[in-house]
Amino acid sequence: MGLIGGSLALALKKAGFAATVTAWDRDPEALEKALERGVIDGAADSVRSLMDAADVAVLATPTLACEALILEMLQNPGSARCVTDVASVKGDLYRAVVAAAPEGAAIYVPGHPIAGSERSGVAAADAALFERHRVILTPDANTDSRALELVQKLWVAAGATVQSMDVEEHDSVLAATSHLPHVLAYALVDALAQSPIRDDIFRFAAGGFRDFTRIASSDPVMWRDISMANRDALLGALDDFCEHLSTLRNAIAAGDGRALENTFRSAKTARDEFARDLAARDRVAD
Amino acid sequence: MGLIGGSLALALKKAGFAATVTAWDRDPEALEKALERGVIDGAADSVRSLMDAADVAVLATPTLACEALILEMLQNPGSARCVTDVASVKGDLYRAVVAAAPEGAAIYVPGHPIAGSERSGVAAADAALFERHRVILTPDANTDSRALELVQKLWVAAGATVQSMDVEEHDSVLAATSHLPHVLAYALVDALAQSPIRDDIFRFAAGGFRDFTRIASSDPVMWRDISMANRDALLGALDDFCEHLSTLRNAIAAGDGRALENTFRSAKTARDEFARDLAARDRVAD
Repeated sequence: MGLIGGSLALALKKAGFAATVTAWDRDPEALEKALERGVIDGAADSVRSLMDAADVAVLATPTLACEALILEMLQNPGSARCVTDVASVKGDLYRAVVAAAPEGAAIYVPGHPIAGSERSGVAAADAALFERHRVILTPDANTDSRALELVQKLWVAAGATVQSMDVEEHDSVLAATSHLPHVLAYALVDALAQSPIRDDIFRFAAGGFRDFTRIASSDPVMWRDISMANRDALLGALDDFCEHLSTLRNAIAAGDGRALENTFRSAKTARDEFARDLAARDRVAD
Repeated sequence: MGLIGGSLALALKKAGFAATVTAWDRDPEALEKALERGVIDGAADSVRSLMDAADVAVLATPTLACEALILEMLQNPGSARCVTDVASVKGDLYRAVVAAAPEGAAIYVPGHPIAGSERSGVAAADAALFERHRVILTPDANTDSRALELVQKLWVAAGATVQSMDVEEHDSVLAATSHLPHVLAYALVDALAQSPIRDDIFRFAAGGFRDFTRIASSDPVMWRDISMANRDALLGALDDFCEHLSTLRNAIAAGDGRALENTFRSAKTARDEFARDLAARDRVAD
């Protein structure tokens, strides 16, 4: 019962996808808040009793808690026809399930809604959080087709668009578009905060710097866990980035204006195209 | 007669600081547009004739043209009581003046308005462009005090706040807050655009990625010139950043969650403080 779990509960009740929503949370206060706010209809006292009463089960805990819980859910799936999750990294959970709960793997449909906000907790739950957002599912050849269909319907009911992708590719794409930029923003702010001219730096920085470093205000624990969970793909993206940065560094040191201009221009072209496509997607969604 | 020169002309006429504004531009069309729009009162046919008629002279050309022109202005300052500029990098111009126009150096007050927009050209000129923005001046011990006062008054008339700083420190601060982030954004977009999974990367990237990479849509020529002009300070900032990034990389590879969390948390603290101070400054300015 955090932002994601709470928002999904509200969205699914509102859409009529879920007749009743029951939650389990290791924090009884979170469950109480959720009940008070009408985010859920009932609270379960254990994962086991939750699975025994569920058609569809969604895991929405912080990253570090996911592995033990997904295994528990799939080892004793009770009446659940499908089990899905919302973790930002998919490979580690998937591999853990294949290794330790293979018999339950067929009804496990790994999922990742690309949504969120800087707020957190069930008090911030918002039924519209997923509207016009993308959800990536990473089924494999063994995934039960009815389980997959159910999870697709779930997310469509919440207002999202759903796509499937290979699990490794998901982790590589997210490493590039999200995990690496967070590491870069944290590294930049940390480097500047330790500079001898730190005070002037932060005094004279303005809106552009604020936008570029916005994601360095993200939750350090969550991003520690994501970095650890997606370590291989993140290192791959980081090393590739460092290679390109090193080439730029050499061009700057050598005074090679032409090489700089070529790289800057080709990056601008790619980014402008991306921004246009994003704007077009937003308009279509409207 | 670009965005900066045009906006300053409008601001100074509006504030009554300038009785008449005359401009020279190597592009006669830019001068014509400026005259038509009422941005300037007259067009000069050479730098020399401009200096012969001016009390205050402002250089506002693209970075690459600055050095030759500032020397020309200071070698034949005519009636000018002060000469200033708006270039993003100050050290290279300053050193060129000290070396090649020392006799004119006393009335040269290097300046840098931290303002701008994604638009360019005199058609985008805006009298309010500098309001509540900061201007950094980099006078030295030899700067004529009346010239300095005049330039300070000029920028206050345009609505800006004015601060003085050592010229080397200016270039280091700007390298950290502006030049390095641009290089990082260009490097990231370029690396991703060349990835084999480029299509998925750009298809699944969303608002956070768009914000982080916004500055990679900046003008490649301008940023090539800034990178070349501020090479030493930029390399210093880049190498310092890479050291911090390398430490983070090692922590990720080693699975050292504690080190990651410490760095992320300390970056978040610094960035949150910066964002609060920026918001407070904006409110005070209102």
